[in-house]
Amino acid sequence: MLKPLGDHVLVKPLSKEEKTEGGIYLPDTAKEKSQEGEIIAVGPGRMLENGTRVAPEVKVGDKVIYAKYGGTEFKVGDEEYLIMRESDILAVKE
Amino acid sequence: MLKPLGDHVLVKPLSKEEKTEGGIYLPDTAKEKSQEGEIIAVGPGRMLENGTRVAPEVKVGDKVIYAKYGGTEFKVGDEEYLIMRESDILAVKE
Amino acid sequence: MLKPLGDHVLVKPLSKEEKTEGGIYLPDTAKEKSQEGEIIAVGPGRMLENGTRVAPEVKVGDKVIYAKYGGTEFKVGDEEYLIMRESDILAVKE
Amino acid sequence: MLKPLGDHVLVKPLSKEEKTEGGIYLPDTAKEKSQEGEIIAVGPGRMLENGTRVAPEVKVGDKVIYAKYGGTEFKVGDEEYLIMRESDILAVKE
Amino acid sequence: MLKPLGDHVLVKPLSKEEKTEGGIYLPDTAKEKSQEGEIIAVGPGRMLENGTRVAPEVKVGDKVIYAKYGGTEFKVGDEEYLIMRESDILAVKE
Amino acid sequence: MLKPLGDHVLVKPLSKEEKTEGGIYLPDTAKEKSQEGEIIAVGPGRMLENGTRVAPEVKVGDKVIYAKYGGTEFKVGDEEYLIMRESDILAVKE
Amino acid sequence: MLKPLGDHVLVKPLSKEEKTEGGIYLPDTAKEKSQEGEIIAVGPGRMLENGTRVAPEVKVGDKVIYAKYGGTEFKVGDEEYLIMRESDILAVKE
Repeated sequence: MLKPLGDHVLVKPLSKEEKTEGGIYLPDTAKEKSQEGEIIAVGPGRMLENGTRVAPEVKVGDKVIYAKYGGTEFKVGDEEYLIMRESDILAVKE
Repeated sequence: MLKPLGDHVLVKPLSKEEKTEGGIYLPDTAKEKSQEGEIIAVGPGRMLENGTRVAPEVKVGDKVIYAKYGGTEFKVGDEEYLIMRESDILAVKE
Repeated sequence: MLKPLGDHVLVKPLSKEEKTEGGIYLPDTAKEKSQEGEIIAVGPGRMLENGTRVAPEVKVGDKVIYAKYGGTEFKVGDEEYLIMRESDILAVKE
Repeated sequence: MLKPLGDHVLVKPLSKEEKTEGGIYLPDTAKEKSQEGEIIAVGPGRMLENGTRVAPEVKVGDKVIYAKYGGTEFKVGDEEYLIMRESDILAVKE
Repeated sequence: MLKPLGDHVLVKPLSKEEKTEGGIYLPDTAKEKSQEGEIIAVGPGRMLENGTRVAPEVKVGDKVIYAKYGGTEFKVGDEEYLIMRESDILAVKE
Repeated sequence: MLKPLGDHVLVKPLSKEEKTEGGIYLPDTAKEKSQEGEIIAVGPGRMLENGTRVAPEVKVGDKVIYAKYGGTEFKVGDEEYLIMRESDILAVKE
Repeated sequence: MLKPLGDHVLVKPLSKEEKTEGGIYLPDTAKEKSQEGEIIAVGPGRMLENGTRVAPEVKVGDKVIYAKYGGTEFKVGDEEYLIMRESDILAVKE
């Protein structure tokens, strides 16, 4: 699998069907892209200018809402994934 | 519910009807979007470069004025919400 | 009333009539918008990266000159207000 | 009079006639705007990220050269003034 | 061979054929450029403002995913290489 | 004469004739503007965020190469001068 | 000769003929400009915000790859040179 670097995280976007079951909908202007997903892997975190790392706020398995147009898409077999910065993650579903 | 990350906050925008009762109006140029809302959830706050977090100035239940075009919209069922950075919150109504 | 956050301040712009009495005029190129007002409320001040806040230089009641196109407009009843960053305040009238 | 905030300074631009007497001319491409003036008031200075202020390098009465298109213009009666950041002041005439 | 400076790394992009065997595919919108490669050399790392260097997270031999449009291309003989900043490396394949 | 502020320096550009004698030529694309000159005056230097100043690397009398389109032009009598930041000075001729 | 300031370095670009002999070729899209050269002189290095300088990673005589469109061109007699920031140097040939 993939190990993200720095403050990057690996996200599996929820398909439209799953999202409908989960009960959260995005407005018409945002319909073309999913903004929900699950955290699959996290990097070691952001490096501060004083040389220490900030532990990520998200962990593997977290269901998250992320910013539109954040991240890089790629496929492993038929599965689609996104790699994005943790700062593109807006909130965790609890 | 949603737990915002970092310096993000979750806001429930006031509908136009509620806003009229509250007595605050926006100028014509800003009429198309609400700029008033209620804080529903707050993140742990902004991380400074020295590694400490700044506690948010707003708390759950605060009625706030926020910047135009700030934040990401989404729906839970029929309810509309916004996730935005605390720096997009301009003032609290007291 | 409104309590500004961070380094925001709440300003009541002077109407054109008041400004004429006060004896300060803006050049033709800036006539369409007032740049004078009174400070109505101030936030706790800007947070430095070392975690301390800078006390605002302006206080409630100060008559100020502010930058063109700074701030967000809104109305309470018939009264117009502006919320802007303290860095948009250029000078205090003494 | 006006008390500038932060690293702002208040400048009285020299009229074209005064400038001709002073013996300094600007090239054709810069003729439309004066770039010489006198410091009328200075703010407390720029705040560093460590929380201390930098004392301004200019003082009231200094004759200065300033950057084109820096600052905000306004009038007190018939007199024109500029408020600009000290970083827009390029040099002092000695 | 080439020794990268600072936080630069030297990457050998995987050809399309190799990538197909590896089982990872990029979406249609990203097909025109490879985003997978192998780390050939690494620089000493990024210099922090406090004067220390951050050891690179990647090492020679790592298989990586990198950002689209990152880096500078060049050839040694018939072989194509990329030099990019480590921040353009998104993840390591494990 | 003029005393530059902060990290500004005062430069007297070399005329085309002088430059030809000095033996350094600029490529065709840069011919329209001189990029060689002599340092006439230097400011106290750049202020770091920790409150100390960096002594300028150039001194009065240095012959320098400077960046295209850096600085502000003005005339004293018939003499043309430039005020620019020291960071626009690329190298000293020795 | 020229002494670069700060983090600038002086580079002598390799002519197309020399580069062919060296065995490194640039892709078609980069053919119009050389990206290989030799370090002729180095400045004292970049100044950090804490007031110390970072010793340059390159030294006189190093053969380097540099970023496209970095630096300022000039001629001494018939010889062409480039002055660029060290951060525009991507790698050293060893």
